[in-house]
Amino acid sequence: MGLIPEEFADLLERPLYVHLATVRPDGGPQSNPMWCMWDGEFLYFTNTTTRQKYKNVSGEQRVAVSVVDPERPFRYLEVRGTVERIEPDPTASMFLKLGERYGLTMKEPPADAANRVIYVVRPTAVSHQS
Amino acid sequence: MGLIPEEFADLLERPLYVHLATVRPDGGPQSNPMWCMWDGEFLYFTNTTTRQKYKNVSGEQRVAVSVVDPERPFRYLEVRGTVERIEPDPTASMFLKLGERYGLTMKEPPADAANRVIYVVRPTAVSHQS
Repeated sequence: MGLIPEEFADLLERPLYVHLATVRPDGGPQSNPMWCMWDGEFLYFTNTTTRQKYKNVSGEQRVAVSVVDPERPFRYLEVRGTVERIEPDPTASMFLKLGERYGLTMKEPPADAANRVIYVVRPTAVSHQS
Repeated sequence: MGLIPEEFADLLERPLYVHLATVRPDGGPQSNPMWCMWDGEFLYFTNTTTRQKYKNVSGEQRVAVSVVDPERPFRYLEVRGTVERIEPDPTASMFLKLGERYGLTMKEPPADAANRVIYVVRPTAVSHQS
């Protein structure tokens, strides 16, 4: 609980696009904008098993997430962490939940639901700037 | 020239905050929001030799940059590349240039000018979503 400073929690609580850094099998980095949800303990992401990101986090569980305050972009939070679990999500429940959080109305699961997975990330370190 | 698709060049031409993924000496990723400039061949960043990022790119030259269109955040560009040169910048010329580009008016170099460096990044691969 104590790892994310109270005064930066809004950057995870608001539906802001975060950027997820992963490490590719060849050891080079990759960066992708992502939806994200934080429940006070874990960060949650939706992805599919067909993406490069899935290959990356299946090999190297360490990830980093950064997010800026759109009103004051100097203000940012970085969370480094570990993908503790990858959960199958064949009903795309996390995709639908995140879609709603980010203002996307969806009546039914996406076409790639069968391949959907949830990344459950435990924060291990933070950096930030006010 | 041909690596960055024409239809995504605006994401590098506009003064948007990009997120730079680097690899730390222990092999884990790091992600930081950054100012960035693109001249059609290289991406340029300002940093200082006292930062963890400097240690990272001094060891592992491969980096990745992602940026979203604030008006349509599904639309994004990722550029992976290599830090081809790290140039000393003791007058903070790149910091001042980027500051102006991002709407920050500065009359004189910052206090950390003596430690300023420029990362010159050659793009090697891109990914994007419309």
